[in-house]
Amino acid sequence: MLEVAAMELDVAFLPRPGRSDVAVVIDVLRMTTTAATLLSRGVERLEIVAGTDPALARAAETGALLFGERDGLPFPGFDGGNSPLEHLGNDYSGRVAILCTTNGSKAVEVVADADNVLLGAIVNAPTVARLAVELARDRITLVCAGTYDAVSLDDVLGAGCIAREVLRVSAAFEPTDAARIALALAESAGGVEKVLGTAQHARVLRDLGFAADVSFAARLGSLGSVARLVGRGPLRFEAVAPD
Amino acid sequence: MLEVAAMELDVAFLPRPGRSDVAVVIDVLRMTTTAATLLSRGVERLEIVAGTDPALARAAETGALLFGERDGLPFPGFDGGNSPLEHLGNDYSGRVAILCTTNGSKAVEVVADADNVLLGAIVNAPTVARLAVELARDRITLVCAGTYDAVSLDDVLGAGCIAREVLRVSAAFEPTDAARIALALAESAGGVEKVLGTAQHARVLRDLGFAADVSFAARLGSLGSVARLVGRGPLRFEAVAPD
Repeated sequence: MLEVAAMELDVAFLPRPGRSDVAVVIDVLRMTTTAATLLSRGVERLEIVAGTDPALARAAETGALLFGERDGLPFPGFDGGNSPLEHLGNDYSGRVAILCTTNGSKAVEVVADADNVLLGAIVNAPTVARLAVELARDRITLVCAGTYDAVSLDDVLGAGCIAREVLRVSAAFEPTDAARIALALAESAGGVEKVLGTAQHARVLRDLGFAADVSFAARLGSLGSVARLVGRGPLRFEAVAPD
Repeated sequence: MLEVAAMELDVAFLPRPGRSDVAVVIDVLRMTTTAATLLSRGVERLEIVAGTDPALARAAETGALLFGERDGLPFPGFDGGNSPLEHLGNDYSGRVAILCTTNGSKAVEVVADADNVLLGAIVNAPTVARLAVELARDRITLVCAGTYDAVSLDDVLGAGCIAREVLRVSAAFEPTDAARIALALAESAGGVEKVLGTAQHARVLRDLGFAADVSFAARLGSLGSVARLVGRGPLRFEAVAPD
């Protein structure tokens, strides 16, 4: 029997180091959704910085736009928050933006040794999947950012949406057990937006007045921009599109 | 608004230490399914031992029955393997049995400080859930054994089946994001047996000739026996039933 050696499609429910051709970091509520939104509004380069003080210093030094949150709300001295909708009407053509986040930047740092690091969300799942398939030689790992050491449903749902698109565009990938679990979540009755609404962090955002961000984050394939890691000190991303 | 403080229903995709009233260790293929089967055949006390040499020594010393596997097959010198079906027709009334397993015993050791440790599977999910609810004061953690450091779909499916039963018998529990992911897997289209069949370890067992064990392990609520940890050196379990 001729057997084609399958490539592996894996999901990490929390960030973990490990060799992978392609690591896709997923923080649906809201870092990677906001990153895709900023790139779609013309941001040319995106930097991710973990602490507020380093982020403020970097912005002062470079003149970059500075966005981010602490406990869901914009931080004093920043140019804006981490809400994708607050950026959707703006034109940031040619600008550099710094995103200051905790869990998202930690996740990128953990996997930064992968040959290719992309930021993935539900809004750009089909484009991320096509790009990941193009770049992969033997393994794609979808890395859920989580919330500190707890698994986040929103990130696993995002991983499931991207995994589904990978399997749609390529027959070469075999999902691991973890990828199958994420796929089951993405296939849940009621659809992506309803499932996303059950996430603990979706409830927190609704309580803070960001219910529209949760709905926006659930719009599968509404954006075509994907951020790809191009430099590691600080973590710099540029927009890419698959062929 | 009067709000009842919810108790937490959590799932650990891999064993991790942590304070919990009730930890339910789940190794659907096949340790905890076999444990429930042995108790249903009259085994009075069950011991779980990690290594084959310690297990052989303990059996020689105590006269206990010795069951277990290495790479899915019975180990030389053992009285039987880890297949639930090979035990189903036997009468072990009043006997002590030793189960020698790697991932399952590691998982029990990681959570052995919980106030109550139960072994859960799909076959005894309703009984395990009722018992866990009776014992819980503020948190139930469903602990998936996994396969070394990889998440196993069969264990997360078992956790989802037990979680669903917990929510059926008690309105006091709020599922965490991880528990909601497991619940989504248990609610997957096609049903529990079909989903279990997609697990990597189900494929391994089929290749070894144990397809019937996989079907047996998917029979939700077919057994009423639950093993509860009563001693920690070695890990000793006794059968319990909820009130």
